[in-house]
Amino acid sequence: MTNTAPAPSDFRGHDFPALRNDRLLRAARHEPVDHVPVWLMRQAGRYLPEFRAVRAKHDFFTVCRTPELACEVTLQPLRRFNAAGAPLDASIIFSDILVIPQALGMEVQMVKGKGPHFPEPLDRPSDLDSLRRPDVREALRYVYDALTLTRHEIGGAVPLFGFTGAPWTLMAYMIEGGGSKNYAKAKAWLYADSDASHRLLQLLTDVIVDYLIAQVGAGAQALQVFDSHAGTLTPAAFGTFGYPYLAQIAQRVKAKVPSVPLFVFARGAHYGLDALAATEYDVISLDETVMPVAARAIVAGRAAVQGNLDNAALFAAPETIHALTEQMLSGFRNADGSLTGLIANLGHGMLPNHEPDHAIAYVRAVHDLSKAE
Amino acid sequence: MTNTAPAPSDFRGHDFPALRNDRLLRAARHEPVDHVPVWLMRQAGRYLPEFRAVRAKHDFFTVCRTPELACEVTLQPLRRFNAAGAPLDASIIFSDILVIPQALGMEVQMVKGKGPHFPEPLDRPSDLDSLRRPDVREALRYVYDALTLTRHEIGGAVPLFGFTGAPWTLMAYMIEGGGSKNYAKAKAWLYADSDASHRLLQLLTDVIVDYLIAQVGAGAQALQVFDSHAGTLTPAAFGTFGYPYLAQIAQRVKAKVPSVPLFVFARGAHYGLDALAATEYDVISLDETVMPVAARAIVAGRAAVQGNLDNAALFAAPETIHALTEQMLSGFRNADGSLTGLIANLGHGMLPNHEPDHAIAYVRAVHDLSKAE
Repeated sequence: MTNTAPAPSDFRGHDFPALRNDRLLRAARHEPVDHVPVWLMRQAGRYLPEFRAVRAKHDFFTVCRTPELACEVTLQPLRRFNAAGAPLDASIIFSDILVIPQALGMEVQMVKGKGPHFPEPLDRPSDLDSLRRPDVREALRYVYDALTLTRHEIGGAVPLFGFTGAPWTLMAYMIEGGGSKNYAKAKAWLYADSDASHRLLQLLTDVIVDYLIAQVGAGAQALQVFDSHAGTLTPAAFGTFGYPYLAQIAQRVKAKVPSVPLFVFARGAHYGLDALAATEYDVISLDETVMPVAARAIVAGRAAVQGNLDNAALFAAPETIHALTEQMLSGFRNADGSLTGLIANLGHGMLPNHEPDHAIAYVRAVHDLSKAE
Repeated sequence: MTNTAPAPSDFRGHDFPALRNDRLLRAARHEPVDHVPVWLMRQAGRYLPEFRAVRAKHDFFTVCRTPELACEVTLQPLRRFNAAGAPLDASIIFSDILVIPQALGMEVQMVKGKGPHFPEPLDRPSDLDSLRRPDVREALRYVYDALTLTRHEIGGAVPLFGFTGAPWTLMAYMIEGGGSKNYAKAKAWLYADSDASHRLLQLLTDVIVDYLIAQVGAGAQALQVFDSHAGTLTPAAFGTFGYPYLAQIAQRVKAKVPSVPLFVFARGAHYGLDALAATEYDVISLDETVMPVAARAIVAGRAAVQGNLDNAALFAAPETIHALTEQMLSGFRNADGSLTGLIANLGHGMLPNHEPDHAIAYVRAVHDLSKAE
């Protein structure tokens, strides 16, 4: 070990290994590929025994905050899928969308079997005064360190995603204090306190923009914005409180890092596809309730698309997974029969009780069924 | 009291009071009305202090099973909204969709602050053998008794709805054992055990058809099928496991009771609107994620529509509720500017922490803004 390597948090001039698999980047730019690239939301997670072994020793946010641990669990699925002869085409840094509320000064715990929990959620607009606008380069340095280390360790095998939660999704968590059946408390803010809602959404947007750009500086080669709660909004509320901030993020991030593909996943916002296709996002990620044919028709070549096998389909036998993958790919074919501009994924993340071999069966099916003829 | 009145469970020849407000029935048939009829899903519920007072003394399923109590809570919102000068245009019998799993022999508890709980949910296909095909006229007699009594007590002021859960929604509860974040266990059956899934869905369909027809015999003047979990399905899975059973119910029920308007609420199944509009349902109920303009365009006059103010909008001030109602109605206008074929409702049910006066503000806004010019 010498001291000549750049420190992980030095955002200039990392000497990263050359990228050897650029299918994902090419698909995001609508360029031809030898097969459709595929990765899985939450591919590093509890369905992997090797992940559970790490989590048995370290709590959730310790893994997020320790670059060596975050790197290890990020690499785990790459190793397993490689060994099975069905390599993934991308990695995504192990982290959580709630690191931003933490950076704003809120406490977030991960409660076993229940999910995230905020002991002191936002209760009323005056609580916004308690949030501090963080120096994102300092407060989330552990994420950049994890990205830099992981990109080195991947050795150029596949690109590495950074990510963030979207403003409305983070706002909803910060007010509900965790998951919720109907997000009524957070939605009540939108209807009853729209000024305070816009103030919070703009604060989150500013932090998110800085955070995404810093992730690229640290080594992220693609970025995804997760608006997991978009579907709780009406089309009108999405138009007022969701879409404008998503569009602003795309505009500001692409102005700074134009060559990095930017993905957006507005889960449940089926009505928002047309509007999102008109923004600067390169790739629109689809949940499983969107018909591939309909998505291609609405997006109409303005963006690439990502998706969208039902994650519950991975409970079926591998032959069924193969058949469902074939149906999905057939729906995503362009008018010329090609699959250009498609990145295969699930409609939602991997679940703890999925079998790793069934995820591998899906990746293999995508590769086998989409090979350029 | 004499013995000459028909017993509540005698399905022939009830001598019910004449109906004085038929706006809902007219709107369901696309006939002109003096204003748009309006009612609220879960209008009898915990947001009403008078309802909480009944529940403080009687547990949930006792209220369902005791005709006098079910009648009392069904009438409560009618009285309150009348007294406020904003009368509702329909009532719906107080009951629960889970009375059918109970009739099939499953135990269902209502757990405070958590919702329904099945101590022994279906775990594997062989568990289907433990379900008994009930005599629906006997097993759910308490519902018919409640309907008959309530229809007499309403005195013809407004029509009385009967209802049921849809096959997929009931199947999902029976397998998950309660509410669920992603319904993965129930969806796994569809992908991994499709034969057993179809067997269960057909059993439920047969019971539902008998149940709906018996409700009409007991006094129900309109019927709604709640497919609350439809949106957890992909379009393909809805096409295989959801829609065919919904369509079968409509066909069989309309064959027996053609004049009773039949409503369907496939919550979250935005992709299913076109297919549902082609069935024999008279009215398609919309959740809040469907744009009124889009719904009218897709349904294209084949059915009336019902909906769909965001229930979270009722947390706003009455002036805001008025403005949002105006937006909603404007989206539902037909090409000729009329509001024919619309029944106003929410996109989902009333919530326990809603203010009764805000619900009243919505009903008043619908009436005021939709008066025939």
